[in-house]
Amino acid sequence: MPSILKGNAVVGQSGGPTSVINQSLIGVIDEARKTAHIDQLLGSRHGVRGIIEDKFVSLKDIKSELLERIALTPAAALGSTRDKPDHEYCEKIVASFKKHNVRYFFYIGGNDSADTARIVQELARAENYELRVFHIPKTIDNDLRVHDHCPGFGSAARFVAAAVMGDDRDNASLPGVKIDICMGRNAGFLTAASVLARRRPGDGPHLIYVPEVPLTEDKFLADVQAAYKKNGRCLVCASEGTRDPDGRTWTERLASNLDVDMHKNIQLSGLGTLGDHMAELVKTKLGIKRVRSDTFGYLQRSFPGFTSPVDAHEARLVAREAVKFSGDGSIVEGSVAMKRVSNSPYRIETFLTPLNSVARETKALDPSYIANGNDITDAFVQYARPLIGELPPIGTLDEV
Amino acid sequence: MPSILKGNAVVGQSGGPTSVINQSLIGVIDEARKTAHIDQLLGSRHGVRGIIEDKFVSLKDIKSELLERIALTPAAALGSTRDKPDHEYCEKIVASFKKHNVRYFFYIGGNDSADTARIVQELARAENYELRVFHIPKTIDNDLRVHDHCPGFGSAARFVAAAVMGDDRDNASLPGVKIDICMGRNAGFLTAASVLARRRPGDGPHLIYVPEVPLTEDKFLADVQAAYKKNGRCLVCASEGTRDPDGRTWTERLASNLDVDMHKNIQLSGLGTLGDHMAELVKTKLGIKRVRSDTFGYLQRSFPGFTSPVDAHEARLVAREAVKFSGDGSIVEGSVAMKRVSNSPYRIETFLTPLNSVARETKALDPSYIANGNDITDAFVQYARPLIGELPPIGTLDEV
Repeated sequence: MPSILKGNAVVGQSGGPTSVINQSLIGVIDEARKTAHIDQLLGSRHGVRGIIEDKFVSLKDIKSELLERIALTPAAALGSTRDKPDHEYCEKIVASFKKHNVRYFFYIGGNDSADTARIVQELARAENYELRVFHIPKTIDNDLRVHDHCPGFGSAARFVAAAVMGDDRDNASLPGVKIDICMGRNAGFLTAASVLARRRPGDGPHLIYVPEVPLTEDKFLADVQAAYKKNGRCLVCASEGTRDPDGRTWTERLASNLDVDMHKNIQLSGLGTLGDHMAELVKTKLGIKRVRSDTFGYLQRSFPGFTSPVDAHEARLVAREAVKFSGDGSIVEGSVAMKRVSNSPYRIETFLTPLNSVARETKALDPSYIANGNDITDAFVQYARPLIGELPPIGTLDEV
Repeated sequence: MPSILKGNAVVGQSGGPTSVINQSLIGVIDEARKTAHIDQLLGSRHGVRGIIEDKFVSLKDIKSELLERIALTPAAALGSTRDKPDHEYCEKIVASFKKHNVRYFFYIGGNDSADTARIVQELARAENYELRVFHIPKTIDNDLRVHDHCPGFGSAARFVAAAVMGDDRDNASLPGVKIDICMGRNAGFLTAASVLARRRPGDGPHLIYVPEVPLTEDKFLADVQAAYKKNGRCLVCASEGTRDPDGRTWTERLASNLDVDMHKNIQLSGLGTLGDHMAELVKTKLGIKRVRSDTFGYLQRSFPGFTSPVDAHEARLVAREAVKFSGDGSIVEGSVAMKRVSNSPYRIETFLTPLNSVARETKALDPSYIANGNDITDAFVQYARPLIGELPPIGTLDEV
């Protein structure tokens, strides 16, 4: 059996934060305290940037009361970064690790962070510097390969499902067309989670558009017209990554139009553009008067006090597991993933998958989860329901 | 003592729904069951529209379990309306009341609803038809005269405060300028509630803009530049009703520019326009790279499972009181208002104020609540804090 490598450890948080990314941070801290192989645990400020700028905070001696409050706090307590390190940047990371006798690196992030971790590990190996690197998954987009699902997704999905459930009641109160735009970039998981808002027949969302299926304006308008006719109202959930058949997002297309046509002070490249445009389409082309849109925006990843208990638990669990794997002298790298052992009752197991299997490319919504290009199937509901926890109760006079 | 008028009652919900408007509905139903003077309790579908279209639902026999679930459900369970009845419309209402022997009318809504209630009562009196009319306050804008505060505001304010608290952590994670747009039309109460997100020095929101104080683009940019320099980041909360010195809202100004300049398919009249424009201003004029905006939108009034307990309680209380007042033979009309007896401990009393004192004109944020045209004072914090309940816990590494 290989001897246990002793030294310091660095933990960092990267990319778009989530509501439970600090659960993972606290998981690392808590588990590291129990180990013999990790001496100091250094938190790098703003991900890899803190490593090359020598901005660390010592984490082992923080009181439990504060740690538990931090665990409940959305967004990265250490700070995050959008830096995507190149080769030179990664060499600086390795140099910093050598300088501080860092032998363990725990990086909480998505596919880009897994790739950074992979490069850093390979560089260290090439320099014969013993370094063990663990990726702790985090993304509201839920798009990591190999992983059954990703910490951060369940809480964002819970927010979306609850928001849409409430908004559907609002739309029933004052009937019209309402368009809600959800995050998720190229992956439709978070937008698909809006389907969990449905309780009874007739409930919205009546139409769900994910980036995996191209959408023309004609198809969109025909769908809305049919749903509006059937229900006397229509609640639409669309991904921010909604695409034209040529692969371009609607937002990209609109931005390029706007650059040409608009007053130069008003280049609307913000997040409201897509929803506003869809609403305007419905108003002008279908002649429906009451049309509104909301872009859920950053609240999906940062709204406090509304996390999924399962998600919070798992975010901490995978981080603990990463530290445990680091104590196994035969393991030098990996991403801690979850496998679903059973769906009812819901049960998962963790395992380590090579960084290479998670880095770079992402995964999309399985075709079996999508129906008619405008709806989400029960298979997805079965997949996602256990991840979001119980939704608030709802009652209507139609139940009388 | 006047004899008690016996007859049927109508209850309706009007205007923009809130998270607790159904608490008021359930308050009316529950209290009406205890009275001898109300025979049938009819719920009118979609406010006054249901009255003239003869769309009623009988409410007295609904099971308590369902009533309590409805009470927890955002948006108007009876349906709401944006109709602002004219004289002829109100005559139809009185005719319907006569036909159905309706002697009591409980109308849950804002200042417009109070005015409708007032007109209906006057018409009935002119026709010697005995009718007693009670307005039950409801508005997230919190802009009713006489009322210390309005049911619906506390929960919307709680949502805004929590959202901004989480978003401030997000902004600290990935520093830049973030702009959040809050509802409230001409009144700054809801936007001002973002101040409750602040926990410690340096916390956002760093700038708060309410419609009561005009704002030029130059002042906005100078403020953002100064706050960004001081904090290395800047979180802005601005009202959807943010105004130019000439009294026009920024949104109106932008819409008129857009009508002229833009491609006719892309008239961006949706809610995202103001936030997107502010973000674009900061990017182009101040050269700050990471600038984002969110428009909180309808979630402020419809997000489920996150109501303020005080607000939920009071929404039901004022409705119960309205039914109780209706049993006093000497009272023919009024709006049930709250008066703050003590702030610490928080304690209110209810009283009846004439419809005329609440109808039509609204109230604005008191000047003592506004500082420097870009901040909210501690006096407002004292006023608003008891209304929103406890916010979720937050912890940061700066506390180490």
